Amino acid sequence: MEWKPDKVNDLPLYKQISNYLESCILNGEWPSGSRLPSERNLAKTFRVNRSTINSAFEELKSSGLVQSIVGVGTVVSKNVWENDQNRTPNWDRFVKEGFYLSNNPINQMIYQLIQTEEKIINFGIGELHADLLPMKLMENVHRSMKLDGDLGYQHIQGNIKLREVISTHMKQYRNITASASSILITSGAQQAIHLIIQCLLCPGDSVANENPSYAYSLPIFHSDGLNTHFLDVQDEGIDPEQIIDLYKKHRIKMIFLNPIHQNPTGTTLNLERRKKVMEICNKYGIAIIEDDPYSLLTYDDEKMYSLKSMDTNGLVLYISSLSKIISSGLRIGWISGPQPVIQRLADVKQQIDFGHSNFSQWYATALLESPYFNEHIIELRRGLKNKRDLIVEAFKHELHQDIRFIVPNGGIHLWCESNHKTINDQLLFNDAIKRGVIFAPGNTLGSQHNFFRFTYSRPEMNTIANGIHRFAEALKASIKK
Amino acid sequence: MEWKPDKVNDLPLYKQISNYLESCILNGEWPSGSRLPSERNLAKTFRVNRSTINSAFEELKSSGLVQSIVGVGTVVSKNVWENDQNRTPNWDRFVKEGFYLSNNPINQMIYQLIQTEEKIINFGIGELHADLLPMKLMENVHRSMKLDGDLGYQHIQGNIKLREVISTHMKQYRNITASASSILITSGAQQAIHLIIQCLLCPGDSVANENPSYAYSLPIFHSDGLNTHFLDVQDEGIDPEQIIDLYKKHRIKMIFLNPIHQNPTGTTLNLERRKKVMEICNKYGIAIIEDDPYSLLTYDDEKMYSLKSMDTNGLVLYISSLSKIISSGLRIGWISGPQPVIQRLADVKQQIDFGHSNFSQWYATALLESPYFNEHIIELRRGLKNKRDLIVEAFKHELHQDIRFIVPNGGIHLWCESNHKTINDQLLFNDAIKRGVIFAPGNTLGSQHNFFRFTYSRPEMNTIANGIHRFAEALKASIKK
Repeated sequence: MEWKPDKVNDLPLYKQISNYLESCILNGEWPSGSRLPSERNLAKTFRVNRSTINSAFEELKSSGLVQSIVGVGTVVSKNVWENDQNRTPNWDRFVKEGFYLSNNPINQMIYQLIQTEEKIINFGIGELHADLLPMKLMENVHRSMKLDGDLGYQHIQGNIKLREVISTHMKQYRNITASASSILITSGAQQAIHLIIQCLLCPGDSVANENPSYAYSLPIFHSDGLNTHFLDVQDEGIDPEQIIDLYKKHRIKMIFLNPIHQNPTGTTLNLERRKKVMEICNKYGIAIIEDDPYSLLTYDDEKMYSLKSMDTNGLVLYISSLSKIISSGLRIGWISGPQPVIQRLADVKQQIDFGHSNFSQWYATALLESPYFNEHIIELRRGLKNKRDLIVEAFKHELHQDIRFIVPNGGIHLWCESNHKTINDQLLFNDAIKRGVIFAPGNTLGSQHNFFRFTYSRPEMNTIANGIHRFAEALKASIKK
Repeated sequence: MEWKPDKVNDLPLYKQISNYLESCILNGEWPSGSRLPSERNLAKTFRVNRSTINSAFEELKSSGLVQSIVGVGTVVSKNVWENDQNRTPNWDRFVKEGFYLSNNPINQMIYQLIQTEEKIINFGIGELHADLLPMKLMENVHRSMKLDGDLGYQHIQGNIKLREVISTHMKQYRNITASASSILITSGAQQAIHLIIQCLLCPGDSVANENPSYAYSLPIFHSDGLNTHFLDVQDEGIDPEQIIDLYKKHRIKMIFLNPIHQNPTGTTLNLERRKKVMEICNKYGIAIIEDDPYSLLTYDDEKMYSLKSMDTNGLVLYISSLSKIISSGLRIGWISGPQPVIQRLADVKQQIDFGHSNFSQWYATALLESPYFNEHIIELRRGLKNKRDLIVEAFKHELHQDIRFIVPNGGIHLWCESNHKTINDQLLFNDAIKRGVIFAPGNTLGSQHNFFRFTYSRPEMNTIANGIHRFAEALKASIKK
């Protein structure tokens, strides 16, 4: 709800609000029988006192548009429609049905706060702050771009120029050989994962995820059809032997891994384990979905080679994106793997959204082709390392006796565990927001409670220390309780 | 497959091709056991003679990489991998599974030809040719655009500025009152339809579609879970009484309509029928999904008001897009309807693709806000009317005794029926492609055979007559058979 009352308007705030709600009701935006948001939520949305909302509701009640129902809330009246025989579609039932589960309420709240008010310091969203984006490079690309390309639908696997540039990029930066024909452009890694699950698996199939993992936070892994099992992430990544156990017990067909600078733990599957994973999956014919958003973001000079770079057997479907190395707003990701699989995924992507915006594909092509791209990656690593140092410093300073964490040597996440086992994660999260800081509670990512993910790429440099200070205060307050 | 052999290279073509295929096999792009495309298809893809592909295959066979299996084709050998104990994941089974059906093979072929070679005249894809796009306006927008906006993830309903501009646009051009909060930005109308089906319906639900319709061509309507029934489209659109029949027999919960300049028939549900549809759906509580891509494209001055513009009851989920009025490459569509429904759809869109590219949202905002937008729409209508006149003229000239059609007074499609009942649609389609013209066979859109859709917005002005001439020759040849 983005409309806001106008505080310099002559009309009293409550009246502006009741007028707005009335127009929404009369447009059908709040159909008869539907429940309005709570007074508390509306007060937050419109940035007014709760008493103002209360007055607006009274106004609507007196005109008969809404009524209070005990135990339900404020509901749009049935009798506002001239003809009593009319029936509104049962939207409430529609909303509760369908294939997809809803997001976890904590994640819903985090996504609502994506465009954070300035006073909130946001460690909750996995993306780069503008201070890490290649703004100058983008402006150059923008200025030199001519809009003379094809403005119609693209090839169903995505713009051919972009796929060729990604093929070159993968060779150069990731030691992966993949022709443009084996690449499908997706709306970030997010869509890649959904396409794979919906096109290649069917109800009753068993798969394995890392635990904790970003994938855990995706409701699709918890939907009815899929049997999702877990591979525990340790300091050196998953234990490959666990794959064999899961295969023998559950005949897992597919495993989802984020081997390098894992989200959320920041750990990397060491080389020996990576080889072992390939060997095991080769032996049992288990497909690997490798999500690799971070391998370019290693802070030291060690090159991190993905499972895909070791794959000559068509074992791995490799997912990556430009979200964590250029900008999440481009919404450019890709999948690379066996051509018959890529063609199947492309056929379904055509059905679902008829491909990706040409505009962002042109920008992505120009950015990856730019001779300054490499320089940007070097600067980005440096910037992330600085932020990592700041957050590590801040945690040591504020909470050195209260939390433990592994210092990440790449990527964008810091994963920590509180030494106090009695904390209520939900209360801590709510209290932290009140104090102006957001993080991702570990249980939304599959861990036991008491763990937290801090994405240090998201806040500005000069707010990191303050953000951790606020978190420390919230944590200390919750320990005392 | 976009790689092509280099005809000026010293290496013989067959050798270049066998080297390329070998590298794809060794990368795992064609895993062991997978079937290579047929010689015929590869010859087409690489634009060489079939004998060249045959030589390349012989080369691969002699090195043991592939083998011929009678009744199957050319298959990647199992023994190319050093270790015989390795098992490739059963990609073939993966590709055949999953929730989504494949596209109809004819549609797959049409989508493969999206970026048509110049010599093919393409009436098969529902989009505008560059000669109808507001190129000057776009260039102005591009030049005056500053990349200082937020480059991160957007609000999960889409960029707020764009939603506000769409809200204003709907008021001004469509007589629809909808606040920005009741709008969700989607990747074209295509994604809107998929979100609605997957979020609001569940297996066993009954819905109704127009027949013929674009929706018919979407495999999701034929997937197992949904019971899809049909409302026959006549010259004045569907018969509202049929909705009552379907409700009584099948308890349909939702109907999908494209009431104005319908795809594919070009017909418009007349005002009286539109009112009747609203009355019936109000009475039975049936939700209406109104797909309205064309209402701005009426050639005469009559304003076409959508069902949504008559809806005060929250009965209609309204879908539209910029694909047919600005450019399909923007991939900007939207859904407007009851806020709780929009919020549910937005929550799932976040899960699926984490929102839409910022870049195309900025362009869309600037284009809709431009004072020249109205002028563009007027020019677009004029351009479409000219193309309509040309195609009507061409049909009358070439085939006046062989086909019947309704002259469309808006939109982009012409629907025609052959007077000869013995034609084989598939053979006619294939023959037409050989002669350099593509159209959409009616049976892919749900009609009986013998019907054809010609999207006259897609070819250039000066190719329309020639395209219909080619079609006429193909049709006459198929009548003779």
